[in-house]
Amino acid sequence: MNSLTFTTQTVADGIVEREFTIGDVTGVLWTPPDNAPTPVVLLGHGGGNHCKHPAMAGRARLLVLDAGFSAVAINAPGHGDRPRTEHDEQEIAEMFANRAAGGAEGPIVERYNANLAERALPEWLATLDALLELPEIGGPVGYFGLNMGTAIGVPLVAVEPRIVAAVFGLFWPGSLAETAKRITIPIEFAMQWDDEHIAREQALELFDAFASTEKTLHANSGKHKELPRFESVDAVRFFQRHLTV
Amino acid sequence: MNSLTFTTQTVADGIVEREFTIGDVTGVLWTPPDNAPTPVVLLGHGGGNHCKHPAMAGRARLLVLDAGFSAVAINAPGHGDRPRTEHDEQEIAEMFANRAAGGAEGPIVERYNANLAERALPEWLATLDALLELPEIGGPVGYFGLNMGTAIGVPLVAVEPRIVAAVFGLFWPGSLAETAKRITIPIEFAMQWDDEHIAREQALELFDAFASTEKTLHANSGKHKELPRFESVDAVRFFQRHLTV
Repeated sequence: MNSLTFTTQTVADGIVEREFTIGDVTGVLWTPPDNAPTPVVLLGHGGGNHCKHPAMAGRARLLVLDAGFSAVAINAPGHGDRPRTEHDEQEIAEMFANRAAGGAEGPIVERYNANLAERALPEWLATLDALLELPEIGGPVGYFGLNMGTAIGVPLVAVEPRIVAAVFGLFWPGSLAETAKRITIPIEFAMQWDDEHIAREQALELFDAFASTEKTLHANSGKHKELPRFESVDAVRFFQRHLTV
Repeated sequence: MNSLTFTTQTVADGIVEREFTIGDVTGVLWTPPDNAPTPVVLLGHGGGNHCKHPAMAGRARLLVLDAGFSAVAINAPGHGDRPRTEHDEQEIAEMFANRAAGGAEGPIVERYNANLAERALPEWLATLDALLELPEIGGPVGYFGLNMGTAIGVPLVAVEPRIVAAVFGLFWPGSLAETAKRITIPIEFAMQWDDEHIAREQALELFDAFASTEKTLHANSGKHKELPRFESVDAVRFFQRHLTV
């Protein structure tokens, strides 16, 4: 197993931010400054973004400052500073050509993200193994990822029993609903009521598929990219309910 | 116009609770102890309950202690210590007979609650007029009511422009959807994903009907009466976003 190596460290506004590598994977860990063992939330970034995208840093900030938790994000395969394979380049080119032609987003994104999830899963598992060796990461563990973060997170949560609560959303059911049926941990699920890419019925179908007895849907008016910022605050409160020891 | 007369006053745990009458109507006002002008949330209680039901007192407590707001509840016609009319007795008898026979709850409850809403509306408007004369009630004004509290609240909010944000839920669309189409203020709407009385599609239809550009659906797993308690906390946060001056 590859070991986790910290490459940078900054401390600002009550948050310790450390970049790290684990094998070929790059990532970032946000922790409170006191090094006491904390619960940790794995943050899955969106497609085309990277582990230090403002949405990730903003969620990490809320988790550290409001909840006293730690947060970690890793770059998905082909994302951030990680090289793309030929297959990545082909899929991305097809995605953009399809978008330019006004085609439906779903089929290509679902197919490509399913491939990325297969590659990302062992990376997340290795990261989690290494994190739980650190004295400042005590657990329990949550997962928070929308869009591609859900495409990777649903299969991850289905196989990783150390993750005990998850926030998902903004994805199609096609490639994920069967896997979601195996998930029983508490779930919060975000959808956009006027999503121009994911039909209302598709979003409801994926939420419905989770076998969790405790699950909450948050549907907001607005288009795909208009998820209100207060949903991050709600997600942190959800994790506070489920990860506080 | 009838004037508001306080009949009792208790102060405990940082909350001033005063019962009042306004004409034939009885109610209760919860305020912070410092008498500074506050936003106020009108609490509409559920069918068969009363204005001091623990659910009302619990929401008032969160509003006062977590948000520094005031809260007010009045007994609906025929509820709490208010006398029932012959029509009330008939409808309630029919509701219980229907329930005992295993009939659908919706049709009778919708019809009876529409009648109660007509009678309650002028009472709420008079209460609001009187409250806004008090130095400790500054506004803005919110409305929070589920079940019958939604059946009364939707027509109230549709005609009362001083109410600027509302939390509704747990009701059928039949008698309310047309009225909801005239409502444009921010809305939070609660439904139960496994509601045995209100079909999923019916709840979604009522949420969809609101013309509000800013609206959020919270759907939780569980049956009609299993709304999680954390939804009250979420509702208070919703009012903090919209009523804080």
